[in-house]
Parts: sequence; structure tokens; C-alpha cells
Amino acid sequence: MKIICLDLEGVLVPEIWIAFSEVTGIPEFRRTTRDESDYHKLMKYRIDLLNKHNLKLVDIQNVIQKIEPLEGAMDFLASLRKTSQFIILSDTFEEFAMPLLAKLAHPLLFCNSLKISPEGMVSGYEIRKENGKMHAVLALKGLNFRVFSAGDSYNDLDMIKESDSGCLFRAPGTIKAEYPLLPSVETYEELLLKIREF
Amino acid sequence: MKIICLDLEGVLVPEIWIAFSEVTGIPEFRRTTRDESDYHKLMKYRIDLLNKHNLKLVDIQNVIQKIEPLEGAMDFLASLRKTSQFIILSDTFEEFAMPLLAKLAHPLLFCNSLKISPEGMVSGYEIRKENGKMHAVLALKGLNFRVFSAGDSYNDLDMIKESDSGCLFRAPGTIKAEYPLLPSVETYEELLLKIREF
Repeated sequence: MKIICLDLEGVLVPEIWIAFSEVTGIPEFRRTTRDESDYHKLMKYRIDLLNKHNLKLVDIQNVIQKIEPLEGAMDFLASLRKTSQFIILSDTFEEFAMPLLAKLAHPLLFCNSLKISPEGMVSGYEIRKENGKMHAVLALKGLNFRVFSAGDSYNDLDMIKESDSGCLFRAPGTIKAEYPLLPSVETYEELLLKIREF
Repeated sequence: MKIICLDLEGVLVPEIWIAFSEVTGIPEFRRTTRDESDYHKLMKYRIDLLNKHNLKLVDIQNVIQKIEPLEGAMDFLASLRKTSQFIILSDTFEEFAMPLLAKLAHPLLFCNSLKISPEGMVSGYEIRKENGKMHAVLALKGLNFRVFSAGDSYNDLDMIKESDSGCLFRAPGTIKAEYPLLPSVETYEELLLKIREF
């Protein structure tokens, strides 16, 4: 039996922090896992930036409420659901993800959670499991699933490498250049084809 | 972070083999995991019975196409999806489950698969993982999820016991009598309450 693991941001929905950067007009929020391979460094940078601008969880959630799935993502998921089971593996936080899941017709998501101060500021975060995407793949393989994974960022690489098969999806040129042997696709049609081959 | 594990048949949809028994008029197909604790013995019995009556996979699938979710199940899932993530853990087979998943709005299902002869007869089955429901719970706990499980049959007991919390749902009196310490509920409202308490 097979199962498909998909990254969330950049694969099914836009990058949340980039959308937040655009709405707030603060370009420093544009930095994502596509640019920075050290996730803890990236999150510390983001929390410091939120504090500096006195931005609360609710400000981020208000932006997320307006985010829609990427063009073609819902058709892609509809096709995928006809033949396959899938899980979304993301390093995002449940406080961000819940409204996005509703828009994606409630797929299963494994992610992390935030720590929120009494004043509603993001004070920290809880990583459910270090390198959680990769460990989810290993757990699924331990349950005797054959696993295919797709993602676009540094934090997807271990997930893809530990899977039975997989590919990059719309990854930035830097990652594709660093990992020239990883299959890489740009459209949902190509991704569906890869999954069907698997 | 929390996750809910639900049995499929008897919890969200009717027992497939009981429906099949009713349509075929062959009462011997009524035997389920609610009556027989040895799953391999039960499946051997079912396959022998299918062969005896020359019934093919397609005959079972034709019955399954007509099965609808239990009354209230879709409202229950809609409420659950607002607040929680869930997985369906079942010992059924993907060849049976796919049309049912569509009717349940495509939740994630972990199950098994059938072996089908060139003539379309059920010739055997492949258990993805022995005691798969329980191992799925252990895998989720290994990923640092807190797990709540609910089911109605003998094959749900290890799943419930290994979870952080859980209950029986509409279990037969025999199981409730054997396991008087396991919490037990009869309605979706009660089940939602248990999940909320968790």
C-alpha cells in the first residue's frame, strides 16, 4: 500500500510569511525555509521581528484568513483523492493551519504548535518532533506503507530522501542546483504523473 | 498536539459484510470482528464462503457502492473537523474502502489490501502490518502526538488500550461485559464530548 506526503506552503498554498510580508509591508518577513536551512534560526528571526513591530498572533491569522490555495491546487487534490491517500507534512503551526485546512477540504496535516503570551504575542513555538517530516515518513514506512514525498524547501529534503520515491515541486534554483539528482517538477500535471508512475 | 483515531465499520459506516449478507441473502456473512476475535480465522471463513457461492470482488463492490454513512456520521465528522485532526484505522481492504471514503469526504484511512485472482475472485488478503491499528497508534505516539481512539470491536481493543485516551462506541454487550473498565458511549454527541474532554 502506498501513501503520498506533501509539503503545504509553496506546494498547496502560498508561503504564509511571504503573504504576511506583503500585507504588513515589512520585507524582512519574506525570509522562508527556501532561503534559510536552519529552521530554529529562522523562527527566532521571525519572533524577534514580530516583537519589534508589536504584531500579534491575531494579525498573522487575519492575513491567513485571506490566503487561498494556489491556482490549480484544488483540482490537483481532487485528482489525487480519486486514487491515492495523502498526508500533508509541514513545519507550520496549527494556529496558522486550521483555516487553510478548511479551504483544502480537510486533509490530514502533521505540524507544530505556537506558544502564545497572555497578550497574544508569539512567544515561542513547540516542535512536536525534531525533523518531524522525515520522522513521519519513517513511521509510515514502519507501518509498511510505500511512501512518495514532494516539497519545495530545505526542510523537505530529508523527507524526500527517506521516502521510497519523491520529487521537488517548484523548488528555488538554489536547491535544485545543490541537489541535481533529485527529480524536480514545476506543474501539478507533472507531479500527478510522478505519483502515478510511483 | 492531539490526534483522533476512529474505526470505520460500525462507527462511521455500517458493517460491510452484514450489508453484503443482507443483499445476498446468505446469513453466514453476518459474522464480523464483533463476534470473532481471530481476524485470520474470520477472513478464511469469509473467503471460503465467497468461493462456495461463486461471489466475486465486483459483487461485494456493488453492495458497497450502495452503502451510506451511518445516520449522523457526516454531522459528527463535520464537527470533528472543525477542531481536530483524525485518522481512520480499519482492518478493511482498500478495494472495499475507496467508494466509502469518497462518501465520507476523503478522510485518511490506514487499512489492508486484497489479493484478487485473474477471474476476479478474492483469493486472499495482505495485512499491511499485523495488529496495524495498534501499531498506527504507537507510531503516532512516537511522533509525539497524544492519541484518542474509538471503535466497536475486538480488533479495536489494543488500539484503544495503547492510546492516551479512548472509548468504545456502540460496542456489543459481550465486549462491554468483558472490558467493564473501558469507557463506552452510544451516540456521536457523547463521542464528541469524550473527544473534547481529551
